[in-house]
Formats: sequence, structure tokens, C-alpha cells
Amino acid sequence: MQKEYFQDTFPDIFTYCFGCGRNNKHGLQIKSYWEGDEAICIWKPKKHHRGTWGLLCGGVITTVLDCHCVCTAIASVYKEEGRKMGSKPMTLFAAGTIKVKFVKPTSLNRDLTLRARIEKTEGRKRTVSCSVSDGKDINIFGEVLCIELREKFNNI
Amino acid sequence: MQKEYFQDTFPDIFTYCFGCGRNNKHGLQIKSYWEGDEAICIWKPKKHHRGTWGLLCGGVITTVLDCHCVCTAIASVYKEEGRKMGSKPMTLFAAGTIKVKFVKPTSLNRDLTLRARIEKTEGRKRTVSCSVSDGKDINIFGEVLCIELREKFNNI
Repeated sequence: MQKEYFQDTFPDIFTYCFGCGRNNKHGLQIKSYWEGDEAICIWKPKKHHRGTWGLLCGGVITTVLDCHCVCTAIASVYKEEGRKMGSKPMTLFAAGTIKVKFVKPTSLNRDLTLRARIEKTEGRKRTVSCSVSDGKDINIFGEVLCIELREKFNNI
Repeated sequence: MQKEYFQDTFPDIFTYCFGCGRNNKHGLQIKSYWEGDEAICIWKPKKHHRGTWGLLCGGVITTVLDCHCVCTAIASVYKEEGRKMGSKPMTLFAAGTIKVKFVKPTSLNRDLTLRARIEKTEGRKRTVSCSVSDGKDINIFGEVLCIELREKFNNI
């Protein structure tokens, strides 16, 4: 079955983010989808995403993780309300804090799997945890506090 | 007086990082220098560094902040040892954790000033704090735990 990627349902105006915008030619263009209660993102680094030491650049994978968590927060609102993604009103979140722990070095040569889940919802705030793995172990672990914008988008 | 940028003193092999590598054509190519006990980085986002909402992408500025802090940790070793940057042995650090708090939204249109300082040194670990400002207020605040690699580089 064709996966429904969260980012493919966003209205054009919201598709230029460096991390998750499908229309940002210079960006990472990540794709996220539900697998039960977890949101998955499979992402493969490019050669120029390396760090000083030749492994994956910590900032680049933090960008992937941040965007995947924020998109998961958005998608979770639709899920909760039993609405199809892409239906109006559109809701947006912004990151309030990002915390990332690098558990073990990550090479550039393998697909990475990010698994995000909503840990806590409190008013407009959703705490999203996310692991990054290049195989069976966790390479990186992160948590993003996502804050829902007050504005809702009906006419886009 | 011509500023001495930390990244310009790195041996060629370490100049391909997405965030701070002067030879990474697709990267951010940040530049850091000392101003007293603070390391400064002035960086201007490009149009494609936007987030979903049209402001600065949180992941991209986290990449700048992370690299600036790690480079500050490297530079602080030379400073402490009274050695000129670029002299051997070269020492490297990697990020162990990154924490970032987004205090207020940041536009794409202004130069950003990052100010980093060493908060704590404990064995191979250095905690580096960093603020990001587009004017007089702080937009973003972060902290990176930088861990010195055991390997030293003499023959590069």
C-alpha cells in the first residue's frame, strides 16, 4: 500500500522548510508516516552531510530529527481529531526546545530510521521523543517540545 | 586587524563538515573567532534556510550553534596551552549532547551573532554555552557538551 507521507498533505505555502519541505530544492525533504503509534522517517545522508571527522554531521541529523518530531506533532492532531491529513483547518507547531544525545557514531553510508512518538500533551504543548538508528542499536536519541501555533489555517 | 578564524587553521582533511567546513561547497561554512573569552560567529541565513512558517529553520541554526560550540572547544585547548591554532598536534571534539531553547522567532533577513563560551571543563569534556541574537535580545540559547577525541593528530 502506498504510504501517506505527512509532508505530502501540507498546502504548498508550507512546503519550503529546509528540513521537511517537499519544494525546498536545497533541503533535506524528509518524509514521515505512521506505523501504529510511532511516526517513522527513513532518511539517507548525502556525502556532503558529513561532519569534521567524516561521520554524519550532528547538526544535520538534528535538523532531520527536529522536523520529523514537529511533523509528528502536527499529524497527531489530525489523528486525535479523526480527521484526514490535508483537511482544513491546517495546524502548525514550532519547536520550543530540542535536546539530542549522541549515543554512538553514525556513518554516512546507511539508511537511518527515525521513530518518533508523542510522550505528553499539555495544552498547546506536545513533547515528542525520537530515536535514530542505523541498524539494531540506537545511535541518537532526542526530544522536541513542540508548541502549537494559535493561528489555524482555513484559507490556504 | 585581520581576524583569525578557527576554521581557517584546520588541516585540509578536516574542512568538509556541513556546518563548519570551509571546503564543503554545499555547507554553511561558518567562521568563528575569539573576542576576549567569547567566541563569536556572525552568520547570515540564506533564503533556503527557512522553516515551514517562513522564519529561520530551527535545525539549521542548531547546526550553526553546534559547530560553533565544537570549534570553540577545539580553539580553547590551543588557548589554554598557549599554542597557535594550526600547530600540531591537532585536537578534535565531538558533540555528546545538544540542548537548544528557542526564545523568540528569528527572521531570515538579518545577520545573526552567536556568542559561545566555555562553561566547564572536566577531563575530556567541555560544556560550551551559546546565545544567538539578531539584535539586542537573545533569540536562541543553547548548550553543547563537547567531548575531546582520544586521538591526537600529528601527521596531517
